[in-house]
Amino acid sequence: MVFWKKLFTSAGSITPDAVSDLDGEVLTVTNNTTTSETEIVFSTDRDIDLYELEDLCDRVGWARRPLRKVKKAIQHSFLVVSMWEVKAGRRVLIGFARATSDHAFNATIWDVVVDPKYQNRGLGKAMMQFTIQNLRNVDISNITLFADPQVVEFYRRLGFMVDPEGIKGMFWYPS
Amino acid sequence: MVFWKKLFTSAGSITPDAVSDLDGEVLTVTNNTTTSETEIVFSTDRDIDLYELEDLCDRVGWARRPLRKVKKAIQHSFLVVSMWEVKAGRRVLIGFARATSDHAFNATIWDVVVDPKYQNRGLGKAMMQFTIQNLRNVDISNITLFADPQVVEFYRRLGFMVDPEGIKGMFWYPS
Repeated sequence: MVFWKKLFTSAGSITPDAVSDLDGEVLTVTNNTTTSETEIVFSTDRDIDLYELEDLCDRVGWARRPLRKVKKAIQHSFLVVSMWEVKAGRRVLIGFARATSDHAFNATIWDVVVDPKYQNRGLGKAMMQFTIQNLRNVDISNITLFADPQVVEFYRRLGFMVDPEGIKGMFWYPS
Repeated sequence: MVFWKKLFTSAGSITPDAVSDLDGEVLTVTNNTTTSETEIVFSTDRDIDLYELEDLCDRVGWARRPLRKVKKAIQHSFLVVSMWEVKAGRRVLIGFARATSDHAFNATIWDVVVDPKYQNRGLGKAMMQFTIQNLRNVDISNITLFADPQVVEFYRRLGFMVDPEGIKGMFWYPS
């Protein structure tokens, strides 16, 4: 495992440069602008407490899903990314994302969630950059996702394109 | 393995009803309107000759990809579907599709190809219905794909929707 330590800016948010060179399994961001040291840690360890993940998803108002299926989905995802706040030796799950993949050409990112209390500080961006970098490290060149309307701009700023060359995302649901 | 035998209509194409109840690993369509019996067989066996698959992709003009990566992608796909014409004991690969999945909630279909000589006979539709049914049989409810502009209508007729509720398919490519 590789560790990176990066400082928060005084505004408490991460600058884009701060995570541009990350390529390890764990990224640690140290906030030493406060007296008690707070670290933001990114991990690809998929051993995540499902109740803690459910709590996080509750916080953004997602519909609950059977934990048995969530467990299976995590097991069979190619990449699982989690973001943690570590403070006084205690860690709290504040972000999550996962990706399915054929391990060769393409990956699709699902279930991107950031605790609302930690949004608008560059952490979602950092988590996505960590996710992209992990996929790039194993030579996945076609990274895709399906974005709700309110987050299209967020992903666009990360370099994602809507409908390149007219390619359309399509969904089939059981009728 | 489960086999279905269905007749071609006299026009030589499959009616939608003919494949509506398929739910096995192999579907066989028998064309007995000609003297020499021709069968169209669908399979989920992933043991596919990579050179034969490359030939099929050549026929639709796709850029060649390293066979090592194609092999890896097939190994790590959740579902691999192939379509064969069987005539006088000889089988020829005439269609292919595969899907990545988290084995729980969602699947994404990639690399859908039908030999141009066999297009416009309902076979692509039948292959996709076979693909969808196989995913539905294991309780995957969110089936997605990225469609080139010229095939959006093809998928729409199969029940796929473009941008439902404003959800956008997005792509990230290495710069």
